[in-house]
Amino acid sequence: MKLELLPGPKLMLIVLDGLGDRKIKELGWKTPLEAAFKPNLDYFAKFGLNGRHYPLEPGLPVGSGVAHTMLFGYSLKDYPERGPIEALGIGAELEHGDLAFRINFATFAEDGKVVLDRRAGRADFGLDEIARDLSSVLSENPFGLEIEVYHSTQHRGVLVVREWKRAFGVRDTDPQVEGREVVLPEGNREIDELVRWIHRKSFEFLENHEINKRRKELGLKPANGILLRGAGMLKDVEKFTEKYGLRGAGIASDALYLGIARYFGLDPVLKLEDEEKITKALELLKNNDFVFVHFKKTDNASHDGDFLRKKEEIEKVDRLLEPLKESSNLAVLITGDHATPCSLRTHSGDAVPFLIWGENVPRDNVEKFGEGFAVFGEAGTVEAKYLMQILLNASGRLSEFGK
Amino acid sequence: MKLELLPGPKLMLIVLDGLGDRKIKELGWKTPLEAAFKPNLDYFAKFGLNGRHYPLEPGLPVGSGVAHTMLFGYSLKDYPERGPIEALGIGAELEHGDLAFRINFATFAEDGKVVLDRRAGRADFGLDEIARDLSSVLSENPFGLEIEVYHSTQHRGVLVVREWKRAFGVRDTDPQVEGREVVLPEGNREIDELVRWIHRKSFEFLENHEINKRRKELGLKPANGILLRGAGMLKDVEKFTEKYGLRGAGIASDALYLGIARYFGLDPVLKLEDEEKITKALELLKNNDFVFVHFKKTDNASHDGDFLRKKEEIEKVDRLLEPLKESSNLAVLITGDHATPCSLRTHSGDAVPFLIWGENVPRDNVEKFGEGFAVFGEAGTVEAKYLMQILLNASGRLSEFGK
Repeated sequence: MKLELLPGPKLMLIVLDGLGDRKIKELGWKTPLEAAFKPNLDYFAKFGLNGRHYPLEPGLPVGSGVAHTMLFGYSLKDYPERGPIEALGIGAELEHGDLAFRINFATFAEDGKVVLDRRAGRADFGLDEIARDLSSVLSENPFGLEIEVYHSTQHRGVLVVREWKRAFGVRDTDPQVEGREVVLPEGNREIDELVRWIHRKSFEFLENHEINKRRKELGLKPANGILLRGAGMLKDVEKFTEKYGLRGAGIASDALYLGIARYFGLDPVLKLEDEEKITKALELLKNNDFVFVHFKKTDNASHDGDFLRKKEEIEKVDRLLEPLKESSNLAVLITGDHATPCSLRTHSGDAVPFLIWGENVPRDNVEKFGEGFAVFGEAGTVEAKYLMQILLNASGRLSEFGK
Repeated sequence: MKLELLPGPKLMLIVLDGLGDRKIKELGWKTPLEAAFKPNLDYFAKFGLNGRHYPLEPGLPVGSGVAHTMLFGYSLKDYPERGPIEALGIGAELEHGDLAFRINFATFAEDGKVVLDRRAGRADFGLDEIARDLSSVLSENPFGLEIEVYHSTQHRGVLVVREWKRAFGVRDTDPQVEGREVVLPEGNREIDELVRWIHRKSFEFLENHEINKRRKELGLKPANGILLRGAGMLKDVEKFTEKYGLRGAGIASDALYLGIARYFGLDPVLKLEDEEKITKALELLKNNDFVFVHFKKTDNASHDGDFLRKKEEIEKVDRLLEPLKESSNLAVLITGDHATPCSLRTHSGDAVPFLIWGENVPRDNVEKFGEGFAVFGEAGTVEAKYLMQILLNASGRLSEFGK
């Protein structure tokens, strides 16, 4: 149903990636969040509303892309594959009908088929130049399609096939004008053929590329081919601004989060260092109603199983949140997109604590921010898809349905 | 799924409208319910089962009509527009296919078009007579339809177009009997034409009505026209008795609640003062299995932002509940239909506390009735649509599904 908004405070959604965790013996049977010294987060929890969310379903671990889709109040069917998200994330312009892949620059054996290193030793030397050259070479293809290759970080990149849908999608046979012939598919072009061609051509071209000679001289593995992943196109999703009637912006450091924010129509979406994020977010709120702010390092520490570092990363973010305490006309929701327990080193389907604090927001009896405390929060345990609604309601911004 | 009932205690659902609230500084960071002296409600909470409900979805504020639809265990699609509810609420008989509007008696400018006062100064002087006369005048319409106008309270009323569906609804072309002609629509009657005619005719007739001359002499605004709102027809809903296999009755003071109880087939539904409600409810239980009792004044105080009055209204209801303690063979569910925080003066989507007490009902560890206490209730936080089921279950009246 369509939400109807009332006037009220500006809104902020702050995500500490992979925040949720499990109690750890070495931390005195506390989670990293419970064990952290985090006076600001505890202040917000004490004077705000607490609860927990299941990202998608109780017990189901999800990826960060899906998790953010739900956090923004969208449904699973609105989530595209990772290709278009990564493309948007590195700043590639994407049109409806373009096909986007995430790619790995990789090391292949001499036959151009056996994969020796999926990440070409993670060395990014010369990959910008390789990507640029590959764009030219691949665009001279027998299918008449424009192909763009981008290098992002380390061994990672993006490949976009422009107007793929027009070329390979199932098309109308209706010529639209009477007196003309029915429009039947022209040849026997196979979609698989394009992928085979891209793979073969890339290897042929890269195997003898100047950069790869220099990589070998430097003792680096050659990036003599590419691996294609997460093929997908943009979907027709309602933009955040239309869905909520809120001008929304986004701030993150990493491609996936920049991409997902752009995909749902937040604008602008800025790539910034952690230290700049909150200051910039408050500045953006002058001309926007909503800002999404993403912090990544808590999740990295979790995947490394390093609970002490996770605790420190939480403490760092806590210090960065200090300016929020002095803000007026603001309601903020702080949570993780999912749990990444250090003991598992991977995403889990555990409930994730959240807090809402600020203008109009009610208090409950919870004293601190944390997995164990949030159980007693008055927002209860809900599915993540309700969080935007709960934030809007808590800050007094929702009009009643069925008035 | 169809619930199958076991023998057991009689049931009562008591609703304090807009009961849910947020902690208020002036009440020592308690809600009006938490701050109230309410020994009976606390007794029921202590010796009963506690929980909280979200009326429709977590965080979504809803109107009282929708909220009661969910409390009675129905689905959103069963809720009609406000017109039929108000019609039933003021005691108008409504048949399937009749079209009902809520109306405002209003003050129009001389052109009969510009609205000067949507409520004709809220003065009800002479409106009963005007409604009676208007019924005669409007029933002589070119569409051959019977039209009834009722005055209820203040500037409010109801307008019913009898057999509207027969006259204007899309009808079958199937003659049902072979050898007959297909049944085609007879003329070019326009539905909009009826509404335009009602509006014009009402103004022409009321502009010079004797009552309006006297209203002017008394310094009151004339009620020289009507505004039509919330058009709707009865829907095919399963009556409460059929749905649950329980003979159910209702008691309320206000049209909306009397209407919604009648709409779902509670019978009888009585309009009573607060002081008479519980005594009468216990009396009705002799010949019924279920009674719905509605108290309105908590919500009125909330909309006025008057938390001290809300606390007092809760204390008044608490005293009225005293006779329940002596009742046997009874299980009672007490809750609000939604939260109306005094700080917001409007409905919110917060969770609302409930308690169940009586015959067979289990105890949990909650000591008092209130938003903060109910978080720890063993019924948990649920959607309101499950409350009837939870009441039936708590009192041992539900047979197992999939036996």
